[in-house]
Formats: sequence, C-alpha cells, structure tokens
Amino acid sequence: MAAHAGKLVVVGAGAVGSSVAYAALIRGSAREVVLTDIDEAKVEAEVLDLAHGTQFTGASSITGGTDTALAAGADIVVITAGAKQRPGQSRLELAGTNARILERLLPAMLEHAPDAVYVLVTNPCDVLTVAAQSIAGLPAGRVFASGTVLDTSRLRWLLGERIGVSRASVHAYIVGEHGDTEFPLWTCATIGGVPLRDWVGPDGSAAFTPDVLDGLAREVRTAAYRVIAGKGATNYAIGLSAARIVEAVLGREDAVLPVSTVLDGQYGIREVALSLPSVVGAGGVRRVLEVPMDDGELARLSHSAEALRASAQSLGY
Amino acid sequence: MAAHAGKLVVVGAGAVGSSVAYAALIRGSAREVVLTDIDEAKVEAEVLDLAHGTQFTGASSITGGTDTALAAGADIVVITAGAKQRPGQSRLELAGTNARILERLLPAMLEHAPDAVYVLVTNPCDVLTVAAQSIAGLPAGRVFASGTVLDTSRLRWLLGERIGVSRASVHAYIVGEHGDTEFPLWTCATIGGVPLRDWVGPDGSAAFTPDVLDGLAREVRTAAYRVIAGKGATNYAIGLSAARIVEAVLGREDAVLPVSTVLDGQYGIREVALSLPSVVGAGGVRRVLEVPMDDGELARLSHSAEALRASAQSLGY
Amino acid sequence: MAAHAGKLVVVGAGAVGSSVAYAALIRGSAREVVLTDIDEAKVEAEVLDLAHGTQFTGASSITGGTDTALAAGADIVVITAGAKQRPGQSRLELAGTNARILERLLPAMLEHAPDAVYVLVTNPCDVLTVAAQSIAGLPAGRVFASGTVLDTSRLRWLLGERIGVSRASVHAYIVGEHGDTEFPLWTCATIGGVPLRDWVGPDGSAAFTPDVLDGLAREVRTAAYRVIAGKGATNYAIGLSAARIVEAVLGREDAVLPVSTVLDGQYGIREVALSLPSVVGAGGVRRVLEVPMDDGELARLSHSAEALRASAQSLGY
Amino acid sequence: MAAHAGKLVVVGAGAVGSSVAYAALIRGSAREVVLTDIDEAKVEAEVLDLAHGTQFTGASSITGGTDTALAAGADIVVITAGAKQRPGQSRLELAGTNARILERLLPAMLEHAPDAVYVLVTNPCDVLTVAAQSIAGLPAGRVFASGTVLDTSRLRWLLGERIGVSRASVHAYIVGEHGDTEFPLWTCATIGGVPLRDWVGPDGSAAFTPDVLDGLAREVRTAAYRVIAGKGATNYAIGLSAARIVEAVLGREDAVLPVSTVLDGQYGIREVALSLPSVVGAGGVRRVLEVPMDDGELARLSHSAEALRASAQSLGY
Repeated sequence: MAAHAGKLVVVGAGAVGSSVAYAALIRGSAREVVLTDIDEAKVEAEVLDLAHGTQFTGASSITGGTDTALAAGADIVVITAGAKQRPGQSRLELAGTNARILERLLPAMLEHAPDAVYVLVTNPCDVLTVAAQSIAGLPAGRVFASGTVLDTSRLRWLLGERIGVSRASVHAYIVGEHGDTEFPLWTCATIGGVPLRDWVGPDGSAAFTPDVLDGLAREVRTAAYRVIAGKGATNYAIGLSAARIVEAVLGREDAVLPVSTVLDGQYGIREVALSLPSVVGAGGVRRVLEVPMDDGELARLSHSAEALRASAQSLGY
Repeated sequence: MAAHAGKLVVVGAGAVGSSVAYAALIRGSAREVVLTDIDEAKVEAEVLDLAHGTQFTGASSITGGTDTALAAGADIVVITAGAKQRPGQSRLELAGTNARILERLLPAMLEHAPDAVYVLVTNPCDVLTVAAQSIAGLPAGRVFASGTVLDTSRLRWLLGERIGVSRASVHAYIVGEHGDTEFPLWTCATIGGVPLRDWVGPDGSAAFTPDVLDGLAREVRTAAYRVIAGKGATNYAIGLSAARIVEAVLGREDAVLPVSTVLDGQYGIREVALSLPSVVGAGGVRRVLEVPMDDGELARLSHSAEALRASAQSLGY
Repeated sequence: MAAHAGKLVVVGAGAVGSSVAYAALIRGSAREVVLTDIDEAKVEAEVLDLAHGTQFTGASSITGGTDTALAAGADIVVITAGAKQRPGQSRLELAGTNARILERLLPAMLEHAPDAVYVLVTNPCDVLTVAAQSIAGLPAGRVFASGTVLDTSRLRWLLGERIGVSRASVHAYIVGEHGDTEFPLWTCATIGGVPLRDWVGPDGSAAFTPDVLDGLAREVRTAAYRVIAGKGATNYAIGLSAARIVEAVLGREDAVLPVSTVLDGQYGIREVALSLPSVVGAGGVRRVLEVPMDDGELARLSHSAEALRASAQSLGY
Repeated sequence: MAAHAGKLVVVGAGAVGSSVAYAALIRGSAREVVLTDIDEAKVEAEVLDLAHGTQFTGASSITGGTDTALAAGADIVVITAGAKQRPGQSRLELAGTNARILERLLPAMLEHAPDAVYVLVTNPCDVLTVAAQSIAGLPAGRVFASGTVLDTSRLRWLLGERIGVSRASVHAYIVGEHGDTEFPLWTCATIGGVPLRDWVGPDGSAAFTPDVLDGLAREVRTAAYRVIAGKGATNYAIGLSAARIVEAVLGREDAVLPVSTVLDGQYGIREVALSLPSVVGAGGVRRVLEVPMDDGELARLSHSAEALRASAQSLGY
C-alpha cells in the first residue's frame, strides 16, 4: 500500500491524538507518524499499541515519546494537546487554559519544525487558531484548525442516509465556528448536481423542507454533545478528519476542505478564524473560497465571526 | 486489501476489456474477475498476463476463456466486445454490426447470468443500450451504458488542472450522447461549493468566460479522437470508468454517476438512452436524476435525444 | 474504495470492539459493520462517532444498538464483549465470568446469525474458544479466536525494526496460548527467504543469537502488560488484527494466520484450542497447518496445551 | 487515497511503459508520474488517456512528452524503452541494439535526474543492467533491473492456485537470469511457515513431488512465451511489478524483492547482474541477500551467471 511521504507529528496522546495516529497509519497518510505527549508512560503505551498493529498496515512507521526534538523535520504537526472542558468551567476559561499551553508548546515545536504546517484540533479550535497564528508568527495558511471538516462530514452522512444516496455524492458544507454558531450553507449544497433544496423523493415531494433543514442543522450542531454524553469524548471521526487534512497537505492535493483560517477580508471579516471552504495543499491553506451566501447565511456568518472575535479578544489575542 | 465480493464478467479481451480487468484487479473492484472472448489464444494470454501480476494486488482472482458458461452466477457483466469503426464505415453501420453481436451474445449470457447487471461499453453505447434492453427484456436499470462517465472524468481533469484545484473537488457533468452531441451542464457545475461560472482566479478575474467554457466542451468532445489518432484506441480511462461503475453496483453505493439508461419520461424523453446523473447501486441504476438545466442545455439535450432516437430507429429498435 | 461485501457484527462497544469497527470501516473490511452492546448510551455514542467519520472512508456502513436481532444475516461475528481482569482476580476467575457471558450470548446470536463465522477476541480467548464451540455446537473452523495473530504482528514488528527490513518481508509466528505460555517458532522463521537464525548483520555477525531470540520472545510475551500499564488497555493493534481476520474470511482469501481453533489431533492435541498457522478463508478456518518444530518447540506446545486443557476443564468444558 | 510522494519518470510509452504508468496511477505509487517517449503523437495520446481516468484515482498526476528535461528532479526512473526481439534476431543482437539506446539515453537522463534511482525493465534486463551501471557510473544499488520480480509473482500465483492457499502466504523466489536460465529456490520456499517440499494435501500426500516442481519451474520459465504467443507482448504483470518496485524505493520500505543488481562477490559472483532476494528501499537496492542454496541450486546459479557474463562481454561490458 502506498504511503504519503512526509513526517506527521501528532502532539497529544489522548483519545483524539492516538486516533489521529491510528487513522493515519491505516490510511498511509504519512510515511512517518510521531506521537508525542508530556505523559511518558501514556505515550509509550500508545505508540507500542499502534506499532503492534503495523503488520496489517502499509509502510508507515510509528514512533514517539516526550521529547519535542522528535518533531525535527516534521512536514505537518497536528496539535490535539490541551485540557478538556471541566464541569462548571466556561468555554472561555477552557480557551484560556489551552492558549497558555500553546504559548509554551508552539515556540518549542517551531524550533525543531520551522517549516511545518500546523493544524489545530484542540478546542475551542477557532479561537486557538488566532492565538496560535499570533504566537507562531506564521502566514495564516500555515496555522489553521480542523474546524468544521468534522461537522461537514456529519452533515453529509445525515443527508446521504436520509435520501439513500452515497455521502460521496453529497456536496454540502457546515461553516463558521466549530461550535454553537456554526451553520450549513444550504444555498450552495448539491446532491449529484441537483440543488439540495430541489431534491425530491421518489414520490415527487420535496425532501428538504425548511423544517427538515433546521432539524438537520440542529442535529449536526448538537452531535458532539450526544457523543460525549454517551462515551465521554469524541475521537474516531475527528481522527479521520485530521488524517484527511494531513493527506491533502502532504499529497499536495489542493482539495477543498472547510478548515478554519484567520481571515483577511473575506466577507469583510479580518483577524478572526472560522471555517470556510478552502483549498488545502502544499504548505497548508492556499486559498479561502468565497462561496455565494444568501442574506440569512451572511447574517449567520457575521454572527459567528462576532462571537469568535469577542472570545479571542478576551483572551488577549 | 479489501475486495468487493461479487463476480464480474468482462466480455471482450481487447484493449478495453483487458484494461477493465486490470483496473478491477488492482482496485479490488470484484472478488472474481472473469474475462471472456471468442479468440481463445488472445483471451488465455490476457488472463495469464493479468494473473501473473496478482502477487501485487489483493484477493481478487482472474480467470477466463471462450465459454459463455464462465458467466454463471455473475453479479455484473461488462460488455466491451464488438467491432471497431473501420475507415469509411459510418457510425450507423458500426451500430448495426454491434447490435447483431448483442443479439447473439445477450441471450447466451442471460441464460448463465440471469440476475446480473449488464453494463455496455461497446460503442455507440447509447444506441446499443436501447437495443440491449429490447433484446434482454430487462428493466432499464439493469441494462445501461458507461455513457459519459468517461467524458465527465475528462472534463473534471481539465477543469481541475486549469484552476489548480483537486479534480475531486470539481463537480460537473457531461450529459447526453456519449459522442458528438454530448454537452456539459455548466448550470449545475460547482467547485468546492462555488458555482463554476462564478469562479475567479487569484486576481479576481472570471476564470470561465463563455469562450473558455466552449473551448473546454470542445476539448472533451474531441478528446477520444485525439487519443485514437495518437495510439489507435482508448483503453486506460475507459478501463477505470468501467471499474468505478462496477464498484458502485457491487458495493451498493448509490453513487451518482452519469451513465446512459433508456429514459422513461425524464425531461419528456422516452425510449432513448442517454447519460444523465444517475444513482447507481445494488441492481444497477436506481434513479435517473433531473438536474436543473437552462434553456440552452434543455435544447441540447433534446437535440442529443433526437439524434439518438433516429439512430436507434434506423437499426430497428 | 472497494469494500468487502458481507456483514460484520462486532459484539461489545468497549475500546476493543469500537477499534475493530473503526479499523474495519477505514479498511473497508466489510460492506456493513454493526456494533452491539448491552449499554445503550455507550453503543449509540460509539456508532455516531464512527458514522461521523464515514465521509472519509469507502462505502461501508455503520449501525448498531442493543438488540441481538441486529445480527440477522451476519456473515461474521467478532465477539469482544466480556469482563476485564480485575485486580486480585485470577485469570481463571475471569474465564469463568466470560464463559457465563458466552453461554447467554451465543445462543441468542446463533438464532439470528445461524450461518455466521464466530471470532472470539474476549480473553482468555483460547479457553473461551473451547467453551464457545461447545456452546454453539458448530464445527471447529467456524468458532475460533484471534489468538496469536496479534502477538505475531508484535514479533514481526520487533524483528523488522531490529534488522532494518520491512515487517512485510519477515515471516515468523508466535503460536500456542494467547498468553503466558505462547512461544515463537524460530525453526520455521524466515526473512526474505533466509532462515532467521542464519541472518547476519552488515558486518557478517549473527543478528539473532539465542540470547537475542530469548529477549525478543520475552518482549512479545510481556507486551500486553506494558501497554496496559501505560494506557489501561490494548485496543488499536487488536482492532487491526480482528479486521484482518474478517477480511480473510469475507474475502475468501485462504490466507495463513495464526488463529486459535479447537484442535483435532494436530501434534497429538485434541479438545484444546490454541494458535497455529491456519488457512483462513470462506467459512472460517479451513485447515490448521502442521509446521515442523524442533524438540524444544514441541515441548513448549505441549506445555501450552496442558495449561489450556487444565483451565478449560476447571471451567467445566 | 494516499499517494507516495516522489516523482516517477517512465521512459518508453509502449505497452509496458504505459502499463507501468497506469498501475502506478491507480495504486498511487508516486505523486508525480511522467511518461516520456521519442514518438510525440504516441506519448501524448497515452498521457491523455491516462489523465482522463484520474477522476477515479488518488492525487497522483500524469504528464509527459518527448523532452528529457521532463525528468528533472526525478526520484526514480523506470526504463522500458528499447527494441523488441524481431523474428530471426538473436537475443544477443537485441541486447546490442538496446545497449546502444542506453548509451544515448542514460547520460541525458542523468543530466536532468542525477539523484534518481534507475530501474531497467527493457530486455534482456540483466545484461543491460551491467551496461547501464557502466554507462552511468553509479553505485550498483542505484541501477538495477526488475529481474525476476515478475517471474516470482508468476510462481507464487501458480503455487497458491495449486494448493488453495493465498499467494500472499506463499514465500518462494525465482532467481538468476530473467530468462531461460532462471530457476526457483525450492530450498528456502515456505508456505505459511511450512517448507514447500513438506506441504501435504488434505489426504496427506506430498503436494510437490520433484516432477511437480520441475513442471512448475518450466511453466514459469516459459510463461512469457505463452503470453507473447497469444497477445504479442506482456505488459500487465510487468506493469504491476515495476509499480511495486517503485513503491519500495519511494516508500523507503526495505522490502525484499528479487531484483537484478550487478553483484559484488555474493556466491563468488562479480560483475554480472542477476536476480537474488534483495532489500529495496531508500536509494534503491540496499543489500543483496545470500539465501541458503543446495548444491543443485548453486550449480544453476553459477550456470546462469556464466551465461550472463558471456553475453555482457560480447557486448563489450
């Protein structure tokens, strides 16, 4: 099985980080996968468990440990390290805690991996992307978050299941904040060339009434809560999402993925990071697309941007 | 490597048929691949050559020969057998020759593979699909042609190369006849959610002016001629296209692919086979989609349908 | 991406079961993956998390729940359900607890999936295989355990890393109990055609002295303990191992894998299940191979068998 | 789908070269595939036909033409260019013709791709490897031939089919000349850990008697003749074999493959290129293994070496 060349460093050996590494090994997303964590016993155990399965994967290697020097020569670094939201803790407090972690982590990583692309998976990922870009001093395209790549995958699965069409033929995006203000771009959504709102069932009736669309948007927005309520965390889908982003970068794919980048005037928004369909390839995000939005969508985007701007500012970024 | 279960029979061991088998083996499109031809020496040599490479593929097997009984229990039959256009021969004469071949071939295949899905690759594939459905007496969804799946792939490659975006993020279709009257559906074409006609280059200028679009349509329409002029045939791209269709059927994917089916009232067209985006899954074509077209596109579709109807009628179908 | 046809049911949505499902989805090991558990909130959350990532996998579907009727029509059932060893609990007490679970579970599964192949991953898997075969009343080849497939993968990784050769070119097996009495078959181990014991380093010195071999055997034997000490469980490598076994069965591969089957006279052993290189394909284990062993290896096999026989008998099987 | 990074240049757009490119694109063996030939119309048609199928492959690109500058920055160059044996032409005359081609081609390629690994597929590949290494002045590991990788694949397919075991579990090699003096290494051949000569059928009888083994060896040795008699050339299996070698190099796999390298004292042989199991990884052949041979095998190896030495000398190498 072919494996992308390139060195992927996954920072954080928790459920998310180890799932990223697992998905990357099985898919051959990178030739070298390195998993790092500050907890030595934990990271060594995860690396061993991953390595023990490699008879059944391609040529990719897995190593890891606690030393940031392991990142030397990395082509891409996926950051999953950070605190998880504690009961009673506000999302903003969490952001502050994790921004402090990035302030220590990023300079150390940059020392060893100055040319890497940095992908943030740690939440709240949009606000942390603003912080990370500021800390790292890199171009916006080289420090971005997985954003709504995961939420978009959730949406496509729901849409495909509902009408009995392969999710691979469903083209729709969730954009904005990876969080409560995110929203679907129904205006540009298509299924096999048919505008989503025009899709009819076998009996000729509209499949996606406004009520149905609102329900689907809500289902996506609350999906993480449902998963966390049942298993305490989400890890598998985000693992695949991050592996997919890694492939787009290392494979120089120029694939369109809704990642979260610090904007520079798109839709009049600046200095806020949120997800929009973006061309991801060599060197990271190469272009943020401006897809047509109706007035409602533009209002939601603005709302999402303002919420994120407020959060970032209260963190000092 | 995983392999679809299911038995694929490829009829015709020429350049096209053997490329279908090669692509199917490498991709694991079916667990059993069977190649048949009336030329015993040729088919045995192709099967041997294919089998000799299987150390490097997955679990799929390859066998073959001249006996139609080899099709017993087939889940899908891809027909590539037929005469090629001779200099001076009209396309209609070719159609007649190949319709005669189907009249002999299909009843024999149906005897051994009564439950298979039949996919026509032999040209002119649209007209032959009308003939084949009539001969076989099967529902339209079970006898269809690869149609413009190949032309659509050509278009997406051209579009992606032109603007530097992965062809996987380009969603556009060529529809109508697999031949001179085919045309692109620019109205529903999108790139990463952006309507194709709205796509701008890095400098903000429109990437796809009417002239550019006409040039791309022409390039796709004449692509086969250019390939044939240089190498005498086309085989690699059609091999992959057919393998992809096989996977959609055997994998019960319900994927949208522009295959050619005898229509039953879509856009007011009946008893003519042409390509439209269609849901392909278990049992073949499960639904032909009615994508929105502008007046120009509707006129072209009608033109394509009339040309194909005239051909079919002159063959007696 | 191609996906094996066939329906895989994974029983138990803990870390192991959900990793089996994750690996199977990413690899396309089965067209339908079903995850079941008695804990409704847990299984629904795992299924959602897995489904949310399927935009990035092939055509395989994932569903699940608590109802054993979900197993209807399964082609293969992987059982990961069971208690984990509690501190102070003996391995034999654990075996008793999990045998009781199988006594309830298997008859219910067989009612819905009478033609499935059953693969035990729950530990102690060898002893439980004897119990399961007795409970299910199926031929030995249809009820077997993942056994030392995982331990063998660990060994090949260690060997490959040590000498700088792809683990895919290392052919060596761990056999016997999946546990403390397991041992490597050095006699038949080869690397790219060279007997393992004859392998020399670049300087011509023997790479695998008896001391080195003993160390490697010990490292494999204690690997699970090291992983569990660091992360509390092993799940990733066993997830891949089980997915690989599923592919061998559903893909009718007749691949040689060291699974654990109730023996019927091989090496003079009967009514004990332990791992030996076995041909795994349609219908499960089709043949247990008798590889040549030297006297030391034969003695260890006998020792392993006696330990396992004693355990099974004390459970009443 | 992941694609190896790296740039592959395939020289020669005939049936073999274009099959190498096709297999490499479908498998993702390299991120960039470039096909070159002196026949402009031919190479452009092949490139177009290959490009037209890329909607259904991964991120790999295909380009090509007549300019040797297209090889700039290549990581690996696969040479398929050369005359084919004409009726009445001796193998030695063919070697001379193709050596002259290499004398022109290699210096031009080296100018543009000074750091590439060079893999010869053109026949007679062993003799041409001696010539190529001399012309290029590179270390032996960087200029080698596909050798008996193809013949070995043929053997494993035959063995697996005969006993109903997956060819992936059959470990056996054809070594020596890629041609009439090649022979199988029965001594080190194993199937799932069982020495091949010890393999018994379900009834306990020996599966591989000396007569059977001789027949299999003959069948492999004459396989190419049978394929050529039926279809005029062999291309599919060699296409996969070359793609597999490319993956081992670009993926830095250190996989054991029986490629043909100019020997430097192995088995007492020098200045002759023939196939032996070899570790293939970053930079090409990293080590030629010395597998144990019995006296008969050693005699055959010596015979093969002498035949090849005579050929090379008569060409002036």
